[in-house]
Amino acid sequence: MRIVLDVMGGDRPPIELIQGGIAAAERWGIDILFAGDERIIRDVLSQEKVAPVGRFDVLPCTQVIQMDDPPVRSVREKQDASLVRGIEAVRDGAADGFVSPGNTGAVAAASLLILGRTARIPRPALTTSIPTLADAPVTLLDVGANSDCTSDHLLHFALMGTTYARDVLGRVDPSVGLLNIGTEPGKGNRLATETYELLSKSPLHFVGNVEPHQLLFERPADVVVSDGFSGNIFLKTLEGGTSAFNGILKRSIRQSLAAKIGALLMRSAFSAVREALSYRRYGGAPLLGVDGVVVIGHGRSDAEAITSAIDVARREIEADLLGRFRAALEGWKTDGS
Amino acid sequence: MRIVLDVMGGDRPPIELIQGGIAAAERWGIDILFAGDERIIRDVLSQEKVAPVGRFDVLPCTQVIQMDDPPVRSVREKQDASLVRGIEAVRDGAADGFVSPGNTGAVAAASLLILGRTARIPRPALTTSIPTLADAPVTLLDVGANSDCTSDHLLHFALMGTTYARDVLGRVDPSVGLLNIGTEPGKGNRLATETYELLSKSPLHFVGNVEPHQLLFERPADVVVSDGFSGNIFLKTLEGGTSAFNGILKRSIRQSLAAKIGALLMRSAFSAVREALSYRRYGGAPLLGVDGVVVIGHGRSDAEAITSAIDVARREIEADLLGRFRAALEGWKTDGS
Repeated sequence: MRIVLDVMGGDRPPIELIQGGIAAAERWGIDILFAGDERIIRDVLSQEKVAPVGRFDVLPCTQVIQMDDPPVRSVREKQDASLVRGIEAVRDGAADGFVSPGNTGAVAAASLLILGRTARIPRPALTTSIPTLADAPVTLLDVGANSDCTSDHLLHFALMGTTYARDVLGRVDPSVGLLNIGTEPGKGNRLATETYELLSKSPLHFVGNVEPHQLLFERPADVVVSDGFSGNIFLKTLEGGTSAFNGILKRSIRQSLAAKIGALLMRSAFSAVREALSYRRYGGAPLLGVDGVVVIGHGRSDAEAITSAIDVARREIEADLLGRFRAALEGWKTDGS
Repeated sequence: MRIVLDVMGGDRPPIELIQGGIAAAERWGIDILFAGDERIIRDVLSQEKVAPVGRFDVLPCTQVIQMDDPPVRSVREKQDASLVRGIEAVRDGAADGFVSPGNTGAVAAASLLILGRTARIPRPALTTSIPTLADAPVTLLDVGANSDCTSDHLLHFALMGTTYARDVLGRVDPSVGLLNIGTEPGKGNRLATETYELLSKSPLHFVGNVEPHQLLFERPADVVVSDGFSGNIFLKTLEGGTSAFNGILKRSIRQSLAAKIGALLMRSAFSAVREALSYRRYGGAPLLGVDGVVVIGHGRSDAEAITSAIDVARREIEADLLGRFRAALEGWKTDGS
């Protein structure tokens, strides 16, 4: 198995990402193709005392798509960007999967443009693991690939999420919920009520509407579907809200000596919370529905997070997720029944 | 000034809500009309040694709309509910405003049915104060009155939010942002891009897109507008995310003696955070755009929260907010220019 890693375009320097790739290769015995600035990659590989042949190889690229580049235009204009060349390597069979901590919109655009969609999936979905107070995380999709969705898109997200949860995460008969602003049937906007209908009639294990609080505390479903706009608002508010809580707490700690001492004594508890909420733990977000394995890491990914993101891609490839999608879609009528 | 308080239908017992009403009356020299079970209200008033005449009066009602009653149907069927009779008192001029910690959907439905909309506002909006790490909160609307919105609705939310922030909250030339999943123009779903266009052409002080994290940390605008679905997802994720953070922290504290002692020393810091994030601080959520002053308290409102919610109504009435809306709408063309 060979995974191409885009080492440019993340928030952290390429060296950290390359180290994450080396660690993943050594842990799971896979090959890594590093896409990016050839000199930097060869320097790091020699520093880390690994040979740039066989297990490790270089895909030299001269351009970089930055975090704030306009997705579609940058993909069209920067044809020698590591993000573009890496995805082309998957299309051409030079690699089995692609991992990047770069510009999410650009990875999604390049994946659609270069790989296209998996048979009969109308839209890809960015899929992420949301930590909960129950032991396991919830698989949430779409968290940002498609801002405007129809109920048919969400139905297919539910099918992909179910397949992913079963065949990659090992859940038995995964349950599916719908992200909504109330639990009763009929709650929410037009898209939510239409999707509720479709999911109820589908053969999927649909358990109803899921509110944000409930998702985090009760984990009422293995998979939760959402349009990409609301899903991204959920994700960004969760990240923003927990850092705000942390920020206000830090400010109050600074105002009292007792609290400062208390915070020192609570160090392990605080780091347990950080660990529980960390994106590092669940690694990357698979872009499901494109015709190739593509995993997007958090922009702030360090070596450890990159290793996790590569693991996500590795497990997808091992489970032959794309083949499973094709199998699940056979005999699946367009009305979802 | 006379405000009718619905003392039934909240999560807390009527006695606490009545006490909140008495405190508000005494603090600001206003009259309170208590709507609900006559015997309970008279009992509490006599316990609290206040006379049920003049400053305090009773609007006896025999029915209650519960938190989980279906909004529209319960308003139609329970004609003697405190929530319905209280809003009728505003329509009939027996009170200047209505406050309820009850079923949000039912208050919104009854307000539309009984009071109707303020001249030319196409949709009412539930408006709330979001605590931020900057000193002041952000006024966010709509957080749940309308799940399906057009850009014209959001434009009018921006006008109402601007008027509210200026005339009730005292902000000078209030700035307006659009809740979105990216800051650049053109980001978001169709509704967001259309609304961005409309707001840019409007005479309002529009400052662009606002992401959740930025809203909480930088307070980039006085007022932020959203459709009711995304706004409610934001609000519920913020509440759920901060309680989840708290929940994970508590669980880790229980696992270590040092952390337990640390938590004791940090008690004041924790209560500062709770205070900063508390719904009690900002009281109720005004339902702007209906033809009468209506404020919805949090379902969990205790006496203190009810006093704050009454204060919100009182300030709206004092500022003649409805008159200000009418004035702002004169000379406002339908395209927002």
